[in-house]
Amino acid sequence: MTWSATGGPPLLRQINSARVLAALRGAGAMRLADLAERSGLSRPTVGHVVDQLHEAGLVAYAGPGDAGPGDGGRPRSGRPPRLVRFRSEAAYVVGIDIGPHKARVAVADLLGRVVAMRRRAIPAAHGNRDLLAALRAAARDALAGAGVERGSVASVAAGTPGIVDPPRGTVTLAPGVPGWTIDLARELRRSFRCPVHVENDANLAALAERRHGAARDARTVVFILWGRRVGAGVLIGGHLHRGAANAAGEIGFLALDGAATAEPDTRGRGPFERMVGADAIAEAGRLAAERHGGALAGLLAPPPGRLTAEAVFTAAARGDTAAAEAVRAIAARFARGLAPVLLVLDPDLVVIGAGISRAGSVLLDAIGGSLRPLTLVPPRLELSALGDEAVALGAVELALADAERRLLPSPGPVPAAPSL
Amino acid sequence: MTWSATGGPPLLRQINSARVLAALRGAGAMRLADLAERSGLSRPTVGHVVDQLHEAGLVAYAGPGDAGPGDGGRPRSGRPPRLVRFRSEAAYVVGIDIGPHKARVAVADLLGRVVAMRRRAIPAAHGNRDLLAALRAAARDALAGAGVERGSVASVAAGTPGIVDPPRGTVTLAPGVPGWTIDLARELRRSFRCPVHVENDANLAALAERRHGAARDARTVVFILWGRRVGAGVLIGGHLHRGAANAAGEIGFLALDGAATAEPDTRGRGPFERMVGADAIAEAGRLAAERHGGALAGLLAPPPGRLTAEAVFTAAARGDTAAAEAVRAIAARFARGLAPVLLVLDPDLVVIGAGISRAGSVLLDAIGGSLRPLTLVPPRLELSALGDEAVALGAVELALADAERRLLPSPGPVPAAPSL
Repeated sequence: MTWSATGGPPLLRQINSARVLAALRGAGAMRLADLAERSGLSRPTVGHVVDQLHEAGLVAYAGPGDAGPGDGGRPRSGRPPRLVRFRSEAAYVVGIDIGPHKARVAVADLLGRVVAMRRRAIPAAHGNRDLLAALRAAARDALAGAGVERGSVASVAAGTPGIVDPPRGTVTLAPGVPGWTIDLARELRRSFRCPVHVENDANLAALAERRHGAARDARTVVFILWGRRVGAGVLIGGHLHRGAANAAGEIGFLALDGAATAEPDTRGRGPFERMVGADAIAEAGRLAAERHGGALAGLLAPPPGRLTAEAVFTAAARGDTAAAEAVRAIAARFARGLAPVLLVLDPDLVVIGAGISRAGSVLLDAIGGSLRPLTLVPPRLELSALGDEAVALGAVELALADAERRLLPSPGPVPAAPSL
Repeated sequence: MTWSATGGPPLLRQINSARVLAALRGAGAMRLADLAERSGLSRPTVGHVVDQLHEAGLVAYAGPGDAGPGDGGRPRSGRPPRLVRFRSEAAYVVGIDIGPHKARVAVADLLGRVVAMRRRAIPAAHGNRDLLAALRAAARDALAGAGVERGSVASVAAGTPGIVDPPRGTVTLAPGVPGWTIDLARELRRSFRCPVHVENDANLAALAERRHGAARDARTVVFILWGRRVGAGVLIGGHLHRGAANAAGEIGFLALDGAATAEPDTRGRGPFERMVGADAIAEAGRLAAERHGGALAGLLAPPPGRLTAEAVFTAAARGDTAAAEAVRAIAARFARGLAPVLLVLDPDLVVIGAGISRAGSVLLDAIGGSLRPLTLVPPRLELSALGDEAVALGAVELALADAERRLLPSPGPVPAAPSL
């Protein structure tokens, strides 16, 4: 083992750097003495480490009144108290949510703070070219909005519907997005020079809910991405469960009726998506309004498409009987699909996210009521705290974890015991 | 840190002991020089460690022709080559499978080798007293058969149907065994003075299949205990997934028909157990034989109960058309219950165990065929390699892991880096 002049052996230097950064990250500007106390290292060791981190561009020296980013990292003249801060602006990460109807791009700093998020709609008769164009436009908008150069992006992650092969970055099966079985990582590498990662969208949303949202204290989590399409992200012991073929959580293809199969319809929707997706909710509202009238009846007249899932939930929340009947019918169907998931996994928590998460307690209560006779253990159900942004925020988490692994000193591997 | 005269600091001594035992266990008698080479430790260190392990009763010195247990652990006179072996007979573990129809008890040594296994049937109109009496009788038989004193038992584990609270050792819900919500750990402590563990039976069977059986190379495993009752044990990343309320895998309560609920019937059977359990298989055979005759028709005459699930599978395997129809009908229902499990978890492997595992390829092929249109990724299906012994063998694994943790030196915790 070789010892350098300052700071001990390389592994210890690395461990000490990680300790100092852990104490400094997210804590604003700090005196070296406080940093020493907080990191448990000696004052001289902290001084060495901070110099090295400064050279690496990861910390900046700041004056006493200058705790934020942007002072250029130079020490001031006239013996200022030596304050240091983590340079969260040393690099940025990009999180992407790409689906058949929109591209959403978030730019975040090395503390995971989102500095810009932009969305582009995708025209109805879309192709891969439209999706990728919207993605690139949203990325351009978000980077410009954040004032971040493309060269400062250290890692990119994208969430997409379908079965994804994360090591390769390819979409291997995506019935809901015709033609979308592409090498998405390669497409992203045309826009970014840093490492890129591709992941199933529901998986990323589950990660985001665990980090920021409704699932913060939960170990086994089922996150349901429920909008026009239905998919699940499963966390076991806080970690993503992808499955043997990266196909875990594809509950949109549950075939609950005796005669049904997992086969998607001509629009790529699986049988469970046809039963409970946003289109089915609107249809249940239409049937209920035709039968019982009420607030939704006014939306039956042309132009078509006014009676949406959102309208059904809004009317139900306001006490409309017909809308409430539609919500109960959808909740009963949803519970039949969710019950097997609960019996198999017995999760701490089920989080319902994406568009349907705006439905509010009227839906949650109806689902809870329908689930009770179908399960042994009553489940904890919550609505997403992150709504439509969950996938992009989960992508930020994934990209940030990658950037941290590559850019920041790691506290491990823990050294083995020396031999006798 | 205090250093003893021999072998370095306590933590290193412990690590070295663990290394020596790892090299010695399961390897028969060995010369100290070979043990040094195999463990990567110096010859003097190995000598010290072996002396300590000998004092602790964990190794024995053996003559060159005496590699097996039973030489009393004394070195021979006349400068014999110093051979040592692991004393797998230093302690024993007991694995129990207790259910409404039988108690099975296995006794194994510290290498996990089963030295005796005994079974006691339980009368049809049973109560807790009958179950516990059968358990105690089977344990007595097994210990006598193994020639093992009760005081040599270091750890006991028992598998039981129902939802189990492993830390407490209580059965909290067991619809299939009326009255069986008992403190099973306390009952076991009346028979054994060592630590006792209680676990769901399907969970233990899954562990056994991963250790000895069909699931040896698999990470995500769904083991289905399929007999009169149906339950699943789920391994994720090779580890047992118990769920938030220890209720994971309770698929016997899947309610697949629109009107059904998870409510057990008067005999405690869940809706999926009523659809595909051994009674349902016999009933499907009866219906098919009444309609089409064939080999099963001869079993329709009194006394009742001759047309069993086993008879149906045997006849189907011999090409009987009516029996094959019954197998296909059951397989189709089973596939409808298994498909949600596969869509959610995307396991490497599904193992079908317990009584139904004797059904052979006729059943496996029919299930595979019925599953294909209901899933996105074709699953790997196998029959149990351990049959009726899986639960008891899984209990042995659990007890052995506990005994190893308590009796054998552990290689961890890995020491943290020294501070500067």
